[in-house]
Amino acid sequence: MTSEFDLIRRHFTRPTRHTDLAGGDDAALWQTTPGHQMVVSTDMLVEGRHFFADADPADLGWKSLAVNVSDIAAMGATPRWALLALALPDADADWLTGFADGFYACAEAFDVDLVGGDTTRGPRNLSVTICGEVPTGTAIRRDGAHAGDDLWISGQPGRAALALWHLRDQLPLDPAHRDTCLAALLRPQPRVALGLALRGVASAMLDVSDGLLGDLGHLLDASAVGARISATQLPEAALITACGDAARARQACLSGGDDYELLFAAPAAQRNTIARLSASLALPLHHIGSLTPPSDGLTLLAADGTRTPLTRRGFDHFSA
Amino acid sequence: MTSEFDLIRRHFTRPTRHTDLAGGDDAALWQTTPGHQMVVSTDMLVEGRHFFADADPADLGWKSLAVNVSDIAAMGATPRWALLALALPDADADWLTGFADGFYACAEAFDVDLVGGDTTRGPRNLSVTICGEVPTGTAIRRDGAHAGDDLWISGQPGRAALALWHLRDQLPLDPAHRDTCLAALLRPQPRVALGLALRGVASAMLDVSDGLLGDLGHLLDASAVGARISATQLPEAALITACGDAARARQACLSGGDDYELLFAAPAAQRNTIARLSASLALPLHHIGSLTPPSDGLTLLAADGTRTPLTRRGFDHFSA
Repeated sequence: MTSEFDLIRRHFTRPTRHTDLAGGDDAALWQTTPGHQMVVSTDMLVEGRHFFADADPADLGWKSLAVNVSDIAAMGATPRWALLALALPDADADWLTGFADGFYACAEAFDVDLVGGDTTRGPRNLSVTICGEVPTGTAIRRDGAHAGDDLWISGQPGRAALALWHLRDQLPLDPAHRDTCLAALLRPQPRVALGLALRGVASAMLDVSDGLLGDLGHLLDASAVGARISATQLPEAALITACGDAARARQACLSGGDDYELLFAAPAAQRNTIARLSASLALPLHHIGSLTPPSDGLTLLAADGTRTPLTRRGFDHFSA
Repeated sequence: MTSEFDLIRRHFTRPTRHTDLAGGDDAALWQTTPGHQMVVSTDMLVEGRHFFADADPADLGWKSLAVNVSDIAAMGATPRWALLALALPDADADWLTGFADGFYACAEAFDVDLVGGDTTRGPRNLSVTICGEVPTGTAIRRDGAHAGDDLWISGQPGRAALALWHLRDQLPLDPAHRDTCLAALLRPQPRVALGLALRGVASAMLDVSDGLLGDLGHLLDASAVGARISATQLPEAALITACGDAARARQACLSGGDDYELLFAAPAAQRNTIARLSASLALPLHHIGSLTPPSDGLTLLAADGTRTPLTRRGFDHFSA
């Protein structure tokens, strides 16, 4: 008979680097670096909603931590400690081995200690809490943007949406680009190095989990500004190449979730700094528009100069 | 159409006391007190396993936080910050109102800020992460006990088990004691003040969530000791009065979970200090046995001097 405690010990006990006491007690213990604030977030992934029942457990392990690491990246902070609460329908050793491998691969990639958790029987639910730290007062929040700031997006938003539609047999993908899209969906890369480099550069930032427009809406609300997005500056070319459909590419870029790119605002004076950052990180950074007074709302500027109002069609877990 | 974000804002946004940024951003921000360690734990409650589908939402709200606060108490630390990840089958405003009321009642009772969370649709799952702090090096761990130390339990273990059996129609309870037992199950009182007072007094400690013997086993393993429990010192009288069955009372006291009392070891030289603590906190503290060399295992000493080996029949979420 395998016990809960055996399960946890066997699969989730690896050495830690930043932690005084991890696992095996009522709570974990660690010391925050003096002069730093704690930065803490939690994300819950539910089977059938955030992942398919037959999803590869190693991918799930990676993603359950990666989406949390992304929240710390989005504050310009350093991820350090994670806790994992798991509800599982059964104690499947193969599944746990795969899941732990993926989880620890992400933990090692981003230097995160798994310091504690909980395991129980129930409908599959992966609940991760991530803790990081940031020099006091330097976190990049959502509420610091001003009208006139540039609006930027990292990497390639939209690939995860193309992959999801492909897996649902709703969209054929060019075989040469399919794996890149699937990797974006299944093994998202949180932009930690970018987030850290943007401290003192970006005026506001968040990560795109629910779609560029949906998440942009939160930044606009928090900062009390509007935004004008330039259609010609959207990074759609690679998406069109992958799916051969300009309309779906536009939809994926603006409304697709799950890419975990960073969306940020910065004063125009920072353009050269951001260009240098892009080169040094080997990560495309796209200047896709600018922030406006709030009364201008959210509009899309076409190549011919016409403006179209946009809605915030982000994915919403209680309205979808 | 109610959105996820509206739900969170409406029900889980109340002022915080120890927090620089709570809610509405990618992560929460706070400052740990200088010279302190962070103390962090997570507990996941699943419908049908940890609570009934028709459980009162206010009781659930209280309990989902209280069991986490208890983990911080068990380290001798001060609870400060909590995150709440909720999977819910629907956005039931009445349920959310009740749950939030119970959750905040516990948060206010123990001076805890709710600083962040996540909400998604799915089988009901309440996942709380609790963060506290303790002066560096003073946390009471499970691994500090020695052979010869006294073994203590706080309050009245076993009431929650009596209540659970009663709710399952397996055990009639004396009406005069039923509500006290139900309160132990539905509104457990984490022993925060006791935990803090035991710093420098107790050599090892944990909270009893899975049954006195089951959890004692973890302390014995961590400290590499055995234990001899004195049957005549077990606080069974009130349990026998409540259920009229000495055997069930013994079972509830030794193996019933969910009371969240503190089980701790302390050198015999601390007996007077502990007696004074019991008086000042108006909380019974029972000296139920003593720790032995590990080779002695775990035994029950009867009034007539006979010794019976005990097994660790704690409740286990994957073997029950």
